[in-house]
Amino acid sequence: MDMKETFLRRTQIFDGHVVHLFVDDVRLPNGGTAQREIVTHAGGACVAALTARNELLLVRQFRYAFGEELLEIPAGKLERGEDPFEAMKREQREETGTRSDRYVSLGVTYPTVGYDDEKIYIWACRVTEPAGDQDLDPDEFLEVEKLDLWEAERMVMADQIRDGKTQIAILKTAALVRAGQL
Amino acid sequence: MDMKETFLRRTQIFDGHVVHLFVDDVRLPNGGTAQREIVTHAGGACVAALTARNELLLVRQFRYAFGEELLEIPAGKLERGEDPFEAMKREQREETGTRSDRYVSLGVTYPTVGYDDEKIYIWACRVTEPAGDQDLDPDEFLEVEKLDLWEAERMVMADQIRDGKTQIAILKTAALVRAGQL
Repeated sequence: MDMKETFLRRTQIFDGHVVHLFVDDVRLPNGGTAQREIVTHAGGACVAALTARNELLLVRQFRYAFGEELLEIPAGKLERGEDPFEAMKREQREETGTRSDRYVSLGVTYPTVGYDDEKIYIWACRVTEPAGDQDLDPDEFLEVEKLDLWEAERMVMADQIRDGKTQIAILKTAALVRAGQL
Repeated sequence: MDMKETFLRRTQIFDGHVVHLFVDDVRLPNGGTAQREIVTHAGGACVAALTARNELLLVRQFRYAFGEELLEIPAGKLERGEDPFEAMKREQREETGTRSDRYVSLGVTYPTVGYDDEKIYIWACRVTEPAGDQDLDPDEFLEVEKLDLWEAERMVMADQIRDGKTQIAILKTAALVRAGQL
């Protein structure tokens, strides 16, 4: 079955700092037409950084869209033309003051596929330079917390950690460590 | 540390069928102000439905934002005021023609927390009525595929299934089945 939808016409609604919004007219597989509301986003990169004792570095941050503080792995939006791997290392350094000399790719996640083209690239690592200070943007407020990896996995399973990229990164990292691959 | 950002003023940019976009002025913890571009969305519900033989029911669907066909678990947007559990059962029935008499909650995921308030509710089940026909919307085109749960888990780990809710649901469902809890 051909399920492809074909672009016909695009109307730009908004061109913001983070969100870009379009309404596209598309041709459906059955010959009809429909409109698709599409958010475009630069994408993001994040890292599950573990200490030698299997402690995961998390950042606690107020997320305005939810009115809640959330526990997340260090992450950030890609700058224009930025390589996701470089963006991830930058965010790790700025948010946690740590680096590593080896990273394992945990692949990509498409967070919300119905109306948004965002892709988030995920890595895991062992922290090799635990020293260093945070280097945050002036309007960035977050706290670093260490959490035992197995406790983090239990919290994901128990619905106590809700950020999607963090859920995926923790479950994949736990599987790798269990298999002796990280 | 107080990290809360306080609402000051809201400007509506777009009020669509799926996407609603606002720009809010907020007060930062340090007393300064900033703008937050916020997508609001009704939220979604989805289900990892397994046969007695540990086959997972997936839907293959063209996703316009990516220009790709993706493999996803059955899912849908909440209608106005709709209970997520009822929405999930409706989507399972419409997209796969199946039902179950017992569902296990896999919790909630916040797919992209920086600018979007969407929440996706996830369940798992064993299919008890495998018969029945799809009942799709006129502009909905998708194909159901059965995939062995362990193969699905391997594909998530190998970055071959990229939809976020589907990655989370597969990893959590595999853990539950392995623990004899589903």
